[in-house]
Amino acid sequence: MVKAMDEKFMSLAIEEASRGVKNGQTPFGACIVRGEEVIVSAHNVVWQDVDITAHAEINAIRGACKKLGIVDLSGYVIYSTCEPCPMCFSACHWAKISKIVYGVCIEDAQKFGFSELTISNDKMVSIGGSLIEITGGILKEENLELFGLWSERKDKKVY
Amino acid sequence: MVKAMDEKFMSLAIEEASRGVKNGQTPFGACIVRGEEVIVSAHNVVWQDVDITAHAEINAIRGACKKLGIVDLSGYVIYSTCEPCPMCFSACHWAKISKIVYGVCIEDAQKFGFSELTISNDKMVSIGGSLIEITGGILKEENLELFGLWSERKDKKVY
Repeated sequence: MVKAMDEKFMSLAIEEASRGVKNGQTPFGACIVRGEEVIVSAHNVVWQDVDITAHAEINAIRGACKKLGIVDLSGYVIYSTCEPCPMCFSACHWAKISKIVYGVCIEDAQKFGFSELTISNDKMVSIGGSLIEITGGILKEENLELFGLWSERKDKKVY
Repeated sequence: MVKAMDEKFMSLAIEEASRGVKNGQTPFGACIVRGEEVIVSAHNVVWQDVDITAHAEINAIRGACKKLGIVDLSGYVIYSTCEPCPMCFSACHWAKISKIVYGVCIEDAQKFGFSELTISNDKMVSIGGSLIEITGGILKEENLELFGLWSERKDKKVY
């Protein structure tokens, strides 16, 4: 049951990421849900908005805060195609998001040239003192394919 | 010479933070400079914008990207009244900012009730593999006074 729900919402995050890639953006998508309700979904728009902070998770958190009129997202779950980078993980912590569910790892994004800080979410939790629950590896193959889709584009750019 | 420059730009970040406190925001300010030129200054607007990611440093980075039309801020320095939290530190890393200069420490903000992840910038650098240069403790007393100014407000709220 949990696995089916995780895969359903991860598929939505993957759709978002695909939409981003088609628009010339990098292959990262996310959505925020509560129970079975999707609050918001978003993809990375760093190049579109000329905003280095415009990662999928940051955009989803900003969108959820705006839509709900709150900055405390306790009880909400974020699904992300890739393990949130330390910036996005920390944004989840500030928002008091209850759970992060991700697909591929930070190392996978790094292999494709992104300038990731090499700090896993588990490490951020253990040394930072966060209460966020973490589940990784959901729809890993499908999430890896996003990087393949993006790699084929001639206009691809890392940052 | 470096000390005088650091104090000059830190004073600007402090002015920004004071402006924020007067507007009912939390006591954090930042500015981004290159050489002697100030590109942008900003304060925390988490409550004003109902956006948990709207820290002073994130706002300054977004503003600088927009103003300059670039996402690579190599050669730029960010001044922040408080040691950037891991979210803001990581945003500086993504933006390739060359140097972070801060006033008080993450622990000082924590003492006033902010839900900080307890990971110093030095630790983020050493475990994450970042090249950012870090200098802390600039105008420490003046920066601590910002928290005093904020503490006196009846409408103060942490997050």
